[in-house]
Amino acid sequence: MRIEAVDFFYLSMPEVTTDADGSQDALLVRVAAGGHVGWGECEAAPLPSIAAFVCPMSHGACRPVSASVLGARLDGPADIAAISARVARDSMDLLQAAHTLSGIEMAMWDLLGRQRAEPVWRMLGHRQSAPKIPYASLLFGDTAQETLARARSARADGFAAAKFGWGPIGTGHPAMDAEHFVAAREGIGRDAHLMVDLGQIFDEDVEACAARLPALDAAGVYWLEEPFAGHAYEAYAALAARSPRVGLAGGEAAHTVAMARHLMDFGEVRFIQIDCGRIGGIGPAYAVARLAQARGVTYVNHTFTTHLALSASLQPFAGILDDRICEYPAAPRPLAAAVAANPLHRDDNGEIRAPEAPGLGIDVDTAALAPYLVDTEIRVGGRLLYSTPALE
Amino acid sequence: MRIEAVDFFYLSMPEVTTDADGSQDALLVRVAAGGHVGWGECEAAPLPSIAAFVCPMSHGACRPVSASVLGARLDGPADIAAISARVARDSMDLLQAAHTLSGIEMAMWDLLGRQRAEPVWRMLGHRQSAPKIPYASLLFGDTAQETLARARSARADGFAAAKFGWGPIGTGHPAMDAEHFVAAREGIGRDAHLMVDLGQIFDEDVEACAARLPALDAAGVYWLEEPFAGHAYEAYAALAARSPRVGLAGGEAAHTVAMARHLMDFGEVRFIQIDCGRIGGIGPAYAVARLAQARGVTYVNHTFTTHLALSASLQPFAGILDDRICEYPAAPRPLAAAVAANPLHRDDNGEIRAPEAPGLGIDVDTAALAPYLVDTEIRVGGRLLYSTPALE
Repeated sequence: MRIEAVDFFYLSMPEVTTDADGSQDALLVRVAAGGHVGWGECEAAPLPSIAAFVCPMSHGACRPVSASVLGARLDGPADIAAISARVARDSMDLLQAAHTLSGIEMAMWDLLGRQRAEPVWRMLGHRQSAPKIPYASLLFGDTAQETLARARSARADGFAAAKFGWGPIGTGHPAMDAEHFVAAREGIGRDAHLMVDLGQIFDEDVEACAARLPALDAAGVYWLEEPFAGHAYEAYAALAARSPRVGLAGGEAAHTVAMARHLMDFGEVRFIQIDCGRIGGIGPAYAVARLAQARGVTYVNHTFTTHLALSASLQPFAGILDDRICEYPAAPRPLAAAVAANPLHRDDNGEIRAPEAPGLGIDVDTAALAPYLVDTEIRVGGRLLYSTPALE
Repeated sequence: MRIEAVDFFYLSMPEVTTDADGSQDALLVRVAAGGHVGWGECEAAPLPSIAAFVCPMSHGACRPVSASVLGARLDGPADIAAISARVARDSMDLLQAAHTLSGIEMAMWDLLGRQRAEPVWRMLGHRQSAPKIPYASLLFGDTAQETLARARSARADGFAAAKFGWGPIGTGHPAMDAEHFVAAREGIGRDAHLMVDLGQIFDEDVEACAARLPALDAAGVYWLEEPFAGHAYEAYAALAARSPRVGLAGGEAAHTVAMARHLMDFGEVRFIQIDCGRIGGIGPAYAVARLAQARGVTYVNHTFTTHLALSASLQPFAGILDDRICEYPAAPRPLAAAVAANPLHRDDNGEIRAPEAPGLGIDVDTAALAPYLVDTEIRVGGRLLYSTPALE
């Protein structure tokens, strides 16, 4: 097969707020080859990611992503890896390229799996799709009372694990943050996994973050996520040395396998969180999962958007039995909820697993998406480089 | 002052080739505040960088760069740092943001310097603009004979230092590469600085690169640049341990200060090369220059485009007397040559220095650029988000 077409669909809620909620817009990708199609999703920033696909070449090491993809051979996983390697080399100076490639790469796996009638996780070499404990990914409330209510609601909704993030944590006194941690634990229950996501609020300030450690420890927090900037490996390692019980987690910003490896080796994280929509897709995420296994680090997906992205993000560690927890977008906006005609529901144990169906096993509900489609047009030098394709 | 306008100008040669020549297009930025204007330049990929400025917000941590810049206070260097910190936080998930910000940040320094009638290097705290030895930045020929001719030509043109990069090196037998190294040395002369740039050809393959070390050493190569992928710190360190004489150089891909720090601390490079058009502008580059000084690492600019970018790239280390060598685009395309009405000519010693004139000291020749201006238009959801502004 040869890749005949790559179509990008920019979807958005009518109103986008400053909430740290990644489900307010989406960039879906459809790849066509040999009479088959596959779907994927880029995370995030639809317009720059489209631009990185269609832009004119700047020079030999700054070519658009399209130059490495359109017309390329796609007969097996090795072809996907070859395309990814070409993007890494020929789009070396195009920073956004990894995000653009990510959705395309997922779609190529989906397409191959559908053509072979095989789920992607099996093509990766996993023997089974093991059940994962989904954690509700939630934002801290503005008050501890709100945080408590959200935690109780997640518990009532059947979640045995929850992660709270962002909100006011780190912006005021540590004692205020402690109240939120206590509230979250009270609401979700003593037997549940509770995680905390600081959204890089402390940049590289180890002391400021260390001031929150006793309260995190007292609340029995399972992991502390992204206390620092994505590249602040030294700060991660310094905090890890002071936090024997609460393990550090990070990695969502990784746009290369090397970045994830460095966060483990130099940053001493105990949980590595990979967003398949940023790191270049499923292949690089699988490479990280294997590196994590070799190091005794727990692999976790990062997913805050649709169930298409969720399925893709489960594939790399579907068969790793020890890595039990997975992120699960618990309260997505209607746009994100509309993408999958067959979302990944929790089973009677409250667990989910990557689909047994071919490819990513997600049917994109194109009719339901039509209201969210954002008409986009890019013209350069008198040529129409992009206009929103028909969604059908 | 408040930032009133940020205008992007996408310039391109009529024909762009796959040569690794970054001077084939350019993205200039003009910032206006308080009746003053300043100019900067993003490197590279004009269209995605424009898109990262104008794109609609995806969520609170994925805002367009414009959200942190337009209307912001600009009364001193601390305001520039505050704007940069806001971009880092509010555009955290927008990968291209650092490249977009880079040109804006330069323009803000230029504007402030013009308003204060002070060169940027003095605003940074340097006491003088010391002379630098410009090296001709050249590509290897397809044959060793061509490489010899280019090296002789650079010597005849008065260069006492030259760097050869890319071309066929690393794609064939080490003996073929050795012929090029010998030719380059012969052409440039025994007394000249000779550097070699491998353009990441070996990815993470230490052995393949180590096979070239004896020939590089025999040719008296001063530094070996980018043998591996930008993030391959482990490969850098492994090669450094096997190369006592030829020091490693890298860093042009750094889009954060942390990346440059890691290349020094984990990758053991002895030369750190920063592109102000990628790392977020002059402020972060200056931070790297200070980190390098503290480590005994030599700071070098990375500049393969215009003399506007060249002036910006000289500012961070203008007053560091020990860091003598600077990259100098020796054979830019006509577009890149047209940008500066007053380019940085070599003096009687063949050296250059950052201008004494206010700001970056470069007058952008808007009339000369008109033929290269690329009409660009971006529409999203029925709104015109970008169209090429008038160049005047």
